[in-house]
Order: sequence, then structure tokens, then C-alpha cells
Amino acid sequence: MRRLILKPPLEARLGLLHDDTLVEPAHPQPGEAVTFSLWVRKDAGVTAVQLRCAPDGEEALWPLHPAEERGDHVRWSGRFHPHVRRLRYRFRLERPDGVLHYGMAGLTAIDPVDNFDFTLHLGPPLPDWPLDAVLYQIFPDRFDDGDPTNNVKDGEWHLRGKPTVARPFGALPLPWSEAGNLDFYGGDLPGIERRLDHLERLGVTALFLNPIWSALSNHRYDYIDHGQVDPHLGGDAALASLAAALHARGMRLVLDVILNHTGSGHPWFNREGLYGASGAYPDPASPYRSFYFFDGPGPRAPYRSWLGFDTLPRLNLGSPGVRAAFFASPEGCLRKYLRPPFAVDGYRFDVANMLGRDGALQEHRPLWNAVRGSLREERADAWLVGEHFFDPDKLLKGDGLDGVMAYHAFTFPVRTFLHRRDRRGAPSALDAGELVRLWQRAWARVGFGAWRRSSLHVNTHDVPRLQSVSGDPRHLDLASALALTLPGVPCIYYGDEIGLEGGADPDNRRCMIWDEAAWDRRRLDHLTEMVRRRRDSPALRRGGFVDLGSSGDVLAFARPLGDEVKLVVASRADEPLVVQVPVGGVPGARRKRVEVELPPLGLRVVDVGSA
Amino acid sequence: MRRLILKPPLEARLGLLHDDTLVEPAHPQPGEAVTFSLWVRKDAGVTAVQLRCAPDGEEALWPLHPAEERGDHVRWSGRFHPHVRRLRYRFRLERPDGVLHYGMAGLTAIDPVDNFDFTLHLGPPLPDWPLDAVLYQIFPDRFDDGDPTNNVKDGEWHLRGKPTVARPFGALPLPWSEAGNLDFYGGDLPGIERRLDHLERLGVTALFLNPIWSALSNHRYDYIDHGQVDPHLGGDAALASLAAALHARGMRLVLDVILNHTGSGHPWFNREGLYGASGAYPDPASPYRSFYFFDGPGPRAPYRSWLGFDTLPRLNLGSPGVRAAFFASPEGCLRKYLRPPFAVDGYRFDVANMLGRDGALQEHRPLWNAVRGSLREERADAWLVGEHFFDPDKLLKGDGLDGVMAYHAFTFPVRTFLHRRDRRGAPSALDAGELVRLWQRAWARVGFGAWRRSSLHVNTHDVPRLQSVSGDPRHLDLASALALTLPGVPCIYYGDEIGLEGGADPDNRRCMIWDEAAWDRRRLDHLTEMVRRRRDSPALRRGGFVDLGSSGDVLAFARPLGDEVKLVVASRADEPLVVQVPVGGVPGARRKRVEVELPPLGLRVVDVGSA
Repeated sequence: MRRLILKPPLEARLGLLHDDTLVEPAHPQPGEAVTFSLWVRKDAGVTAVQLRCAPDGEEALWPLHPAEERGDHVRWSGRFHPHVRRLRYRFRLERPDGVLHYGMAGLTAIDPVDNFDFTLHLGPPLPDWPLDAVLYQIFPDRFDDGDPTNNVKDGEWHLRGKPTVARPFGALPLPWSEAGNLDFYGGDLPGIERRLDHLERLGVTALFLNPIWSALSNHRYDYIDHGQVDPHLGGDAALASLAAALHARGMRLVLDVILNHTGSGHPWFNREGLYGASGAYPDPASPYRSFYFFDGPGPRAPYRSWLGFDTLPRLNLGSPGVRAAFFASPEGCLRKYLRPPFAVDGYRFDVANMLGRDGALQEHRPLWNAVRGSLREERADAWLVGEHFFDPDKLLKGDGLDGVMAYHAFTFPVRTFLHRRDRRGAPSALDAGELVRLWQRAWARVGFGAWRRSSLHVNTHDVPRLQSVSGDPRHLDLASALALTLPGVPCIYYGDEIGLEGGADPDNRRCMIWDEAAWDRRRLDHLTEMVRRRRDSPALRRGGFVDLGSSGDVLAFARPLGDEVKLVVASRADEPLVVQVPVGGVPGARRKRVEVELPPLGLRVVDVGSA
Repeated sequence: MRRLILKPPLEARLGLLHDDTLVEPAHPQPGEAVTFSLWVRKDAGVTAVQLRCAPDGEEALWPLHPAEERGDHVRWSGRFHPHVRRLRYRFRLERPDGVLHYGMAGLTAIDPVDNFDFTLHLGPPLPDWPLDAVLYQIFPDRFDDGDPTNNVKDGEWHLRGKPTVARPFGALPLPWSEAGNLDFYGGDLPGIERRLDHLERLGVTALFLNPIWSALSNHRYDYIDHGQVDPHLGGDAALASLAAALHARGMRLVLDVILNHTGSGHPWFNREGLYGASGAYPDPASPYRSFYFFDGPGPRAPYRSWLGFDTLPRLNLGSPGVRAAFFASPEGCLRKYLRPPFAVDGYRFDVANMLGRDGALQEHRPLWNAVRGSLREERADAWLVGEHFFDPDKLLKGDGLDGVMAYHAFTFPVRTFLHRRDRRGAPSALDAGELVRLWQRAWARVGFGAWRRSSLHVNTHDVPRLQSVSGDPRHLDLASALALTLPGVPCIYYGDEIGLEGGADPDNRRCMIWDEAAWDRRRLDHLTEMVRRRRDSPALRRGGFVDLGSSGDVLAFARPLGDEVKLVVASRADEPLVVQVPVGGVPGARRKRVEVELPPLGLRVVDVGSA
């Protein structure tokens, strides 16, 4: 068997560790005393440590002092009173071999650029429940048909000339060219509610539902009633019932909401003519005209829509009426659902990357700040997470979203690493070393606070299922296991637990399989076990991250939290490997090195802590 | 002799080149057509190239096409209409070996974080004259005494109990503990004016003068009259005369100005009691009270000062009166000097990093935007550059300063690289590879536009002279040669050309030596020659930058501009070296590799272009 000996990077050899668990309190107010700690190996030759920051643009070096010894490590510590709302900092370590600067993405010998500093947000506490959550994403029309009486009927309505099509639950989704997303399969909220035992057995702790407002298409992103659960899904009553059932099990509920646009059939807009001659599209005098962006006067003028899809006219989020309807007023629909009888626990915002941005209009940061302020008033622990395919830095500066769907730093690179093709299908030479560097840089951009509140998806309703693209089901196993062993909120896309396949949209939205004989039991057991390991391990959920020399086909990192240290080793190689990992630099590790046997495309979690 | 063969990084081997000279027009308006070009080696296997940006938070991939072949290279090109004021972009290159993403700090195999994208500012043209300038910094009291009748006299005034001391020109500066910066040596503006032949022979094209407003201390940062040239320097008339003399020779003039604070002796503040009982410090009812930040009511209340130095009370830049006095009104002093008879060409802003920042008050970006707007109204090509010891990113986003004094990316790391100690005297293991990575990241943070308008200083009035700290005059030669061969505005600190020594402040402000017999002729010749090479070479002044494998003790990079390619190789080793540099990847190079002999601590510029 091929044998590899990994070489950890210098920061791991010196035993350096700092993360948000080494900052106390976790959610300080500006001006409050904050204790910062840094673990260092005793033999690292470090003679002095300073915390380096520049709160008013001028450098400050705050001295740390040895505070505690444990095994081979010493904890340097200092107590300071930062007065800012967002402290960016790094550590300066003096050694006879040369000064080192330690930021969230690693070490440099010279004072680096500030990009990759650690980040501490000072202010109101953030929701902490996502840190321990395992999410499960459901596309409502395709999960289970709990109430056939509410199903959409053939020809119940038309959109752009196409009729609704009532399909039997379990049939394959029809191509867009054929059905135009008007094929419905009967899935609804009662269907979800009756399957909670399945979800609880899998170990998930929270549901993320794709849109549930009344809409014309099956994905419901073209909603026609902001803040009214679609009667075909069971209406508001079914949502209240589902929420209560979840909360009774200690589970949470996150809804997919859309501020970027309405459907073109919404009464405010009414391009589809469902509401006579009223609405902003046919009637320039409509009170809702200013809710949208028209490029000319008169009826039926051209207008801005999401990526040019004219069924999705963009909302003018500068309009007080729009803001009131969604969040600024206590009656706003996003506030309504945060209150009983729904008391949903958070929102996933569609197209968060583009909100409030359109050419000269670049109002995204104040917009998110206002949304956050309004919703937090309603519920202090509401989790606010945004859809974002790209580098989300601008939305995660502590004044906007809590986190994002980590497409950019998790979904795309992990899929690319395994499949060896990028998301556009081009060949990729991405290796494990560069994957870890991307993680570290992406996390450092936003800080642990935002990263731990960002969700890690292997598959979603917007990408083809990995295993269906690559043809190798082990890719899904390995990617899911990574989501469950990394910092962030792991999210399972419905059906991934039992082997549901699916190519590009809409094929990635097939109906869930409830015939257990058709389930991939091995996969279900594997995923259930990985979820259990996550839930049983504070270190996997909330620990730090230490790269131990990831390179080529092999990822190896530690997740330390006090005396608990989990070693995670994963391989994308096609052959079995024996990997020797030096772990002695990790604070809390009781061993010097660990040898791990890995099957092809395998992942192992090994307990190496002294706990 | 030791022989090294360098290995250029992948981007150089693939022959990649993009910089601001490959964007046309150089200063487009939003919405205008812009052509972007990227050079690639023909044998790089690149099959498609896209420019990647995300102007409204959503990714756009704009296709480039092969437009021109030259030697081993092909130029990919595309014409687009960016609508934003600040376009951040990178290139996506498709190859059978794997997709690559090319940003300003290099290549990645996976879509990277956005930090190191290229930057294009769209809007009013920036001043271009700094791109061709060679600056010379003068501390006015110490350059030459042109008019002994205006000299400060013994005991002419007192500050905090210490009297002014008239010292003979040429005597060593007195320690702060002894003279409290009240020792004066007679230097003045007529003294500078009569030495312009010396400066023109050296080849410098612009002067940067430390403060010249009336003040109590010899450094004049504690000015007592905003916008009045100190009579001891010759007054406004001497400035007009100097400016005219410079402009007549085609030379430029840049003044050091202070918006952060006044002196405590300024009549607005009057802590020193020079103006009776008036002023904000003794009189809470003073109309100037709101010009400063007092921490309590009543006379003689505590106040904010620069880094706690109570002779330098911080100005409240939110005050309309302060803004009017400096820049908001046409009578503002910064606007006055931009007009004839002075027509100065730019300003260096003291403490730019801290301006408008104080705890909860973080108004720096709108402040700089207002300063820029006002001064550009007066003079479209005024160069606005800020003092900044740290990562200056926030001030260089296209809406603030044009550039900074590049302490963070040039002065400190280059001095550290040569001296092997950081600016605090701690040992440093910085090597050439990490130095280049720092440059590339720092430049990428702000873009070529801001970088080329930032000044490169080896020595200044705020750091001990490198050669005096390190004890090795070759360090100064090499660092100066780097400033003259890198992108940025090279700046020579007065006396560096003839061997003036000087330790920490105030010793680094010794009087210039005018006895030519005491000059270090070798150094003068060397520096004059390097200045000439810079001025004779468009590529050294305005070309791109390609690292050719800098590592260990050796820096090697190309400065290409069309068919002119300069290869720069430098060594900090104590022994002579032969360095073989593969240059075949650089567009415009006519050779495959070059062998360069380097003496200890030497630098060579070799012409390798096909021009």
C-alpha cells in the first residue's frame, strides 16, 4: 500500500492555535474587557507575543504573557478593551530565528497585508444555535405528498401559455422546455411533518425549506403573495403545525425568502394579468410603480429583472413601501413568521449577493444592516444567511448577514477537488494543499464568527447532484463527511441520504423516494454515523482548524477544542493509502504522530486528544 | 563563484502578462468601451480566456479572443463597457491541464477570494506626472541656509519651558531631551532654491518638502498658522520663488500638509498662551472650540491629541469651519497653494492613516472623498499622497488618495530584507520569495493605479537612515536601486546621494553637507546613474512586473513594456553570485535565458527586450 508521510506547515510545527474559542467572552460589547489566548509549543523558541491591531488606522501592539502550561504547550494570554465594532487582529511572535506574523491564513516573516487577519465582532450576541446544527434542505413540492386534496391540478393556471401539470409523486421532473416549471408533484408541508421521524433518525436538527409562498411555478421563486404560505402546500396553518412539531422535537426551521424580486404575477406587478388592469406593469399610476425599476414611462415599459428573467421583476429595496411590506414594519411578512405560531428560526435570503446592487446603485451594506436590525428586533437569535455563489466578504462584515451558503469556499471547491472538474465542467488541477489555502483565506476574509454561521452544501436545488455528475457515489460520501467535519453548518440535500440521483435543474429536484427497499442503506448508515459523530463531538462542531500538511490527494487537519482533538484525514486517491500524520504540534494532542489507513476516496476521524 | 538557476513561477512560465498598460483607455469613464489585453505564451495550452468580474455581486465572464501574435506570445483581447466606478477583475484561463485563475498576485487552480483581483478605476483622469517622477525629500531646516537674516534666534520663543536654540548650520541635531526640537539650523527655501543645480544633476524631477508653515518646533508639524509659510523659511514669497524656479526647470513641488492636528500654539487652540485668553483651550466659548475634541467642559479640559502628544491637538474634521479653512472653501489654504503664484503640484498628507478616525467616529472614507473633490476642482493633476505606515487599502479605493508613502510594502520590508531585522530591531527570516509575494499582494490590494502613484522611500525623516542602522552603506545603494527599478514613485531622502548618516529621530535630520570634498563620490555617481536609467526607460517607469523566481537572497524580476523589457536581478548575499534567469516567458523578451554576475549586495539591470 502506498505510504505517505505528511509535513505540517510551520504554524502547526510551532504548535500555534488561535480561534474564536480562545476569545472570551465570545460576544463582547465595544469597550468590554476581552481575553485573547494563543497556544504555542514550549520549544517553538517564542520569547514574546503581541496582539497586533490598528483600530483607528494606527498600529497597536498589545502584549500577551504566558498564562498556562499544558503538556508541550504554553498559552499566551492578554486582556484588552477594544472600542471598535469590528476588530481585525493578528499576532506578532518574536523568536531568535526571526519574527513571525500569525494571521488566520497562516504565517509570514514580514508584516503582511491585512486581508487575512482574525476578526472579532463586538456588539449584540449572534445566534449560537447554528453552530451545533445539522441542516436538511427540502424542495417542498418534491418531498412528500401529505395531503393529496391540496395538490395543484392539471391546467389550474397558465404561465406564458403553458398550463400547470399535475404529475404523480415519484415521476421524474419534466424538462423546462416541456413544462416550464409548471409540473407539480404534490409535495407539501404536511408531507414534511409526517416524515420527521426519518429526519430525526438521520440526526438532522434543522430544516431549510425552499420557498413556500404562493407562486406560479413549482420552485416558487416567482411568488405572487409575499408572506402567505401556498395553499397547495397547506397554507399558513400547515406551517404553524410543522413549526410546532419541529420545535417539540428540539428542531429548528429556516425558510427561503426572496427580497430581490417578486414573480411577474404578483398583484403589485401583474404582468400576467391575474388582477385586471391594476399593478405596476400595466398601470404607471399604480401605487406599486415605485416598487420596481422601470426603464421608461407608460404601461408595459421595460423593467429590471433578475438576470434578465422577465418573470422575476426586481424589487426597489429603496422604496419605503417595499421595506415596510417585508421587514421595516412590524407587520412585514418576514417579521410575522418570526413570531408565534410560526416562530421560524431563521431565513435564507435568495440572491443575497445582488440585493441592493444595480449599476450606480450600490446600497447593499446599508440594506442588510436595516434588514438585520428589523428582524433581530423581532427575534434576537434569528439566523440570517444569504445565498452567495461568490466571495461573500462584503455581506459578512458584522453589520449584515450572519453567514452565507458557502458555495464559493465549500461547495464548488470540494466538488472540484473530488471530481477534478470545475463547476463549468473544465478540467481542474486543484489539489488538497490549494483547497486548504482557499478555505483558510476564505474563512479569514470573514472571520470564524461568520464562517461558523455559513452553511456547507454538497448538493442543492441549484447544482446537479455531485454523484450524478461525476458518476461516483463515493464523491458524495466524502464531500458530505467533509461538511460534517469542518467548521460551518453542514447541510444535507433531501435524498442524499438514500441515494437519490439528479442532474442539472430540474432533474436535481426529483421526488424523494419513500420505498425503503429502493434506498441505498450503506449510504444512509454512513451518513447517519457521520452526523452522529458531529453531534457527539464539540470539537467537530465548535473547534479550531489546524492544517497538518494537506497536499496532493490527501487532506489532513485537526479540529482541536481544549483536550478534545479530532484528526480528520481524507483521500481522493483511487488506491488505498497509509498516511502518517504528525499531530504533536496540535494543542491538546496526546500523541506525536498517527498512522491512518484510508480506502480509496475515504475519510477517517481519529481521536487524538488527551480528553 | 556560486551559481544559481532560478525557477520562475508558473505564471511566468506560461508567459502571462496583464497590467494597467494593457487596459485602454487608461482612464475610462463608467460605461465607456474599455479594451483589456492579456499576453499568453502560444505553447501555454490556453484554449479560452475570460475576464471575470462581479459588478453587481453576480459573476460575469466576458470572453477574450486572440488579437495579435508576437514572437512566442499571443495577445488575447476583449472590449467591454464596465458601468461601475471600480472594477475588480481577474482572468479565467481554460487549459487541458486544468483551469487557471490569474489575478494580480498570481495563479490559482480554483476560483480564489477576491482580494487580489486587478483593479480599474473608472472616472476622472488621475495625475499621470507622478508615474515619471523621481522625488527628493527635504527637511527644510537642514538643507541649506540661503538667507541667514531670517534665522531663528536663541531664545526667540519658548515651548514648554525650553528656549529656541540657534545652531550653526552643519552642527549635529541636539537630542530631544536636551533641545525639545527647538534647535534650529537656518535652512530655508532660498537655500533650497540655490541648490537646484545639484538636484537637477542628480536627476530628480520633483521636491517633497517637509512642513513649511509657521510653527514652534523645528519639524513644524506643530504649526501655528495654517497656510502661511514660516518667515524663517522665507515666507510665502520664497515659496512662490522656489516654485517658479522649479517649474522653469520642468520640476514639480509637493508639500507636506497636516489635517490631523494643529500645534497647541495655534491661535485656534492657544494652549501655549501666545494669544492672550482667546482660543479653544482656555476659552470654552471660543468659536474654535468645536474645531477640536475636548473630553470635558470648562477651560483647559482634557482633549484628544495625536498619539497622546499634547502639543498636537487633533482637529475635528467634521467641523465645517475646519473643512472650510483647509479645503472646502476656495479660500482654504490647501487650495490657495494649488493656485499661482505657487501652483504646487501635490500634497503629502501627514498621518493620513488616522484622519477622520477616532473610536466610534470612522469617517475617513467620506473625508478623503471630500478633500479629493475640493482639491481636484482647483487643480485636476494635483497628486494626493498620504503618510501610511500600514496596509493602506481603505484610503486607496479610488475615492480617496491617489497613493501613499509605501512604508508598509516597500520601506519596511526592503529594509528588513537587507538588514535581516524588522523595524523594531527583531531578527527576521524574510527572504526574496516572501518579499515579492508581499509586494504582489500589497499592489493587488490597491491596484496598479494607486501603486504607481505611491512613493518608495528607503530613508525618511521618520526612520533612522538604513545604512546607519545596519552599518553597511551597500544596503542603501541596493535599496535605492530597487526603488528606482520597481513600480512606484522613487524618493531620495536628502543627503542619501552623498553619504549623509543619521540614526533615530532627530539624528536622521542632520544638516546636508555642502563641502564636496566630504561627499561619497562613488555613491553619488551610482545613484545618479540609477536615476538616469530610470528616466531613460519607459519600462522601468511604467512597465509591468513579472517575478522570475525570486528566492532566498536573490530578487529577479522583469519590467516589460511592449518591446522594451528590463531584467532586474539583485542579491543580498555576502558573496558574488552567478544567477541564471529564464526570461523566455516574458512577452517582448528576445532571449530565452540570461546569466548575470552579481557582486555581494549588488543589483544589475539588463536589457532583454526585442526593442
